[in-house]
Amino acid sequence: MRPLNVGLLGFGTVGKGVFDVLARNGGEIARRAGRPIRITWIGTRTLDRAREATRGAKGVHLTSDTGSVAVHPDVDIVVELIGGIEPARELVMSAIGAGKHVVTANKALLALHGNEIFAAAHARGVMVAFEGAVAGGIPIIKALREGLTANRIEWIAGIINGTSNFILSTMRDTGASFDAVLAEAQKRGYAEADPTFDVEGIDAAHKLTIMAAIAFGVPMRFAAAYHEGITKLTREDIRYAEELGYRIKLLGIARRKSAGYELRVHPTLVPTKRLIANVEGAMNAVLVKGDAVGATLYYGAGAGAEPTASAVIADLVDVTRMHTSDPEHRVPHLAFQPDQISDLPVLPIGEVETSYYLRMRVDDRPGVLADITRILADREISIDAMIQKEPSEGEDQTDIILLTHRSIEKRVVDAIRAIEALPTVRGAIIRIRLEDLA
Amino acid sequence: MRPLNVGLLGFGTVGKGVFDVLARNGGEIARRAGRPIRITWIGTRTLDRAREATRGAKGVHLTSDTGSVAVHPDVDIVVELIGGIEPARELVMSAIGAGKHVVTANKALLALHGNEIFAAAHARGVMVAFEGAVAGGIPIIKALREGLTANRIEWIAGIINGTSNFILSTMRDTGASFDAVLAEAQKRGYAEADPTFDVEGIDAAHKLTIMAAIAFGVPMRFAAAYHEGITKLTREDIRYAEELGYRIKLLGIARRKSAGYELRVHPTLVPTKRLIANVEGAMNAVLVKGDAVGATLYYGAGAGAEPTASAVIADLVDVTRMHTSDPEHRVPHLAFQPDQISDLPVLPIGEVETSYYLRMRVDDRPGVLADITRILADREISIDAMIQKEPSEGEDQTDIILLTHRSIEKRVVDAIRAIEALPTVRGAIIRIRLEDLA
Repeated sequence: MRPLNVGLLGFGTVGKGVFDVLARNGGEIARRAGRPIRITWIGTRTLDRAREATRGAKGVHLTSDTGSVAVHPDVDIVVELIGGIEPARELVMSAIGAGKHVVTANKALLALHGNEIFAAAHARGVMVAFEGAVAGGIPIIKALREGLTANRIEWIAGIINGTSNFILSTMRDTGASFDAVLAEAQKRGYAEADPTFDVEGIDAAHKLTIMAAIAFGVPMRFAAAYHEGITKLTREDIRYAEELGYRIKLLGIARRKSAGYELRVHPTLVPTKRLIANVEGAMNAVLVKGDAVGATLYYGAGAGAEPTASAVIADLVDVTRMHTSDPEHRVPHLAFQPDQISDLPVLPIGEVETSYYLRMRVDDRPGVLADITRILADREISIDAMIQKEPSEGEDQTDIILLTHRSIEKRVVDAIRAIEALPTVRGAIIRIRLEDLA
Repeated sequence: MRPLNVGLLGFGTVGKGVFDVLARNGGEIARRAGRPIRITWIGTRTLDRAREATRGAKGVHLTSDTGSVAVHPDVDIVVELIGGIEPARELVMSAIGAGKHVVTANKALLALHGNEIFAAAHARGVMVAFEGAVAGGIPIIKALREGLTANRIEWIAGIINGTSNFILSTMRDTGASFDAVLAEAQKRGYAEADPTFDVEGIDAAHKLTIMAAIAFGVPMRFAAAYHEGITKLTREDIRYAEELGYRIKLLGIARRKSAGYELRVHPTLVPTKRLIANVEGAMNAVLVKGDAVGATLYYGAGAGAEPTASAVIADLVDVTRMHTSDPEHRVPHLAFQPDQISDLPVLPIGEVETSYYLRMRVDDRPGVLADITRILADREISIDAMIQKEPSEGEDQTDIILLTHRSIEKRVVDAIRAIEALPTVRGAIIRIRLEDLA
């Protein structure tokens, strides 16, 4: 059969990974796909790099005019690996307009403009595949969209940002501060010069938005996603969490409830005995709870040249198989048929229901704990565990750490305000959310 | 669109699970599949049970004549959940002959007769889907066959028998013996009255055979699979393993090498820090190493009514989408195109390369260790770690535990024979294989 011709937009780390893996495993991939998949065009600003990396490869044309690759008659599938919003958005839309199928690993683009992109693809009868956009090489999009179709998916909780998981793992292992670990990670190239997207949970919120859409059959609603980063986490809280049998992970959590769904990224205490609490370094893992299957977990490298290339090429094989088929035979982009998308809203963070870790500095005086527990009880917040430390020698203040049962966030926020107003409580209360994930 | 009509063969635990999940989640499943999936015929020997469970359901016909359901004109897809070889094999072949697509969760049938079944399905242009046959609700077949198509898969290591993992976890937690834990598991219904298939690794070997076929593009070769069970594992070995930083798991391991592939099920020491070593109770997990993606892990319930139903219904949705499509648009049954299956042989167990845990009882005398290490060195087996215990008070014998580096099994077997022949070594040497799984 005729080979499938791929036009590659962008030749950074992942672009080169796709080229290398196709070159190395092309034979084995063709044994699966039923025909060869070959890169015919590469559109990139870094022509020299691409020329060097593709030296000796036959039939590969290079150009800096990415726009021409997106619509080129010798290209069947356009692979967008430029990243960011523009010009990626414009190129993807123009490829779709030209009737090309598109494979992309661009999570920001899909989280922000996915609704528009998938509507255009549906109207034009082409496929847009995006396994590489979430959790690198882990086939989590396929699992959610095809592997768990029997289930009402109840919730997803994922470690979906390798940089922040690396920082948190290292803080725990070494006892170093966030700033120190970040500086080290930047020096070694594990974290970007501007780490905002990673450490503030924005990158994780992009990926969570995409997973929630295909899990619940809802549109992409990144603007409504809540995100809170790891920059304010202290060694003390990591240590207290350990003492209570928990690890702190930056989780992306989407949970379906009757009035809407939760969509939130934040540091989270997770019981140490859960498998996901033991995911270390830059690795990713996604825990999915379905009503029939129960809890399932998917683990692997969440980034990197070849792991992401693995996902991109899996999409290429899928598209290779299906590109001449009737659209009704294809898996819907967002798992649910386009006319079956629900308008279930995202719940505001105040309506979220979860458990809490609260750490407060208090005067070591009789009655303090009674005041605090009264404030919690008045708001129907019940206490699951507590540590009260003896004051250090010569000090008259101490730390109290409380774990609450599940409660509505706005009640907890209200309780924190009331506790902070007590004359015996010093400074602000540290609040970290906690999920049992059973 | 017209609903898809399913004929169900067998109405045991999983059959009822499929019926229940389709009844409960039918609306959400149709939103994904694009059309309703409904059970029109149930063929079962337990008619009363089926009548009771399906009471009030519309359009469901019951019969004890399973053969008629397999070829019924009102059935588009036949779901075989009878288990065992006959009559399941005959019914599946007759359904294929009648042009029906087949979904089955029958691992024994596929491991023993898969080559014949898939050849018949290919010739007739129908699909045979089998996600439920391996690791229950975990979409591992989809991950291997579609999610990792970019990769040369190097090896697979899986906890794919829940009963034996439950027994091993409980032995470790409670310190009880194999016999005691098995008896308790049987009393609670976690283990069968005849537990041979589970505890001797036969069930795991069935599943491993299927995974190896789709990972490496080879035929089903169950007859060549090596299996060794957990019945001889002692509390002592579990404790010594812990002391050395390992857990003992019954693993199914398939590894590709140049001369052939390893296909083996046996108790295995795994470093405690690996995620898979922390899979407890009846849960399953499969670790897959691809050359591009690296290590990925898939975890979930490996058995049970609704987890297995989750996999069976995912197959039904796949078949629903593809049943009117051209066969070239479909994913090949065994991941590779039928004319691209390799004849790479299974390596005999003596040619397998792995590490070893060796425990021996020796006289507490000078020179014993020198004799043992000399025998190993002569066979180029190098030692990675060792424990020698002090003899108990009043005893003149002691335990030596050795961990070896990777070696060829036949050399180790030869070394064991030589060591056992030493006059200072008492009784047989305990040999358990060890895998680093990095």
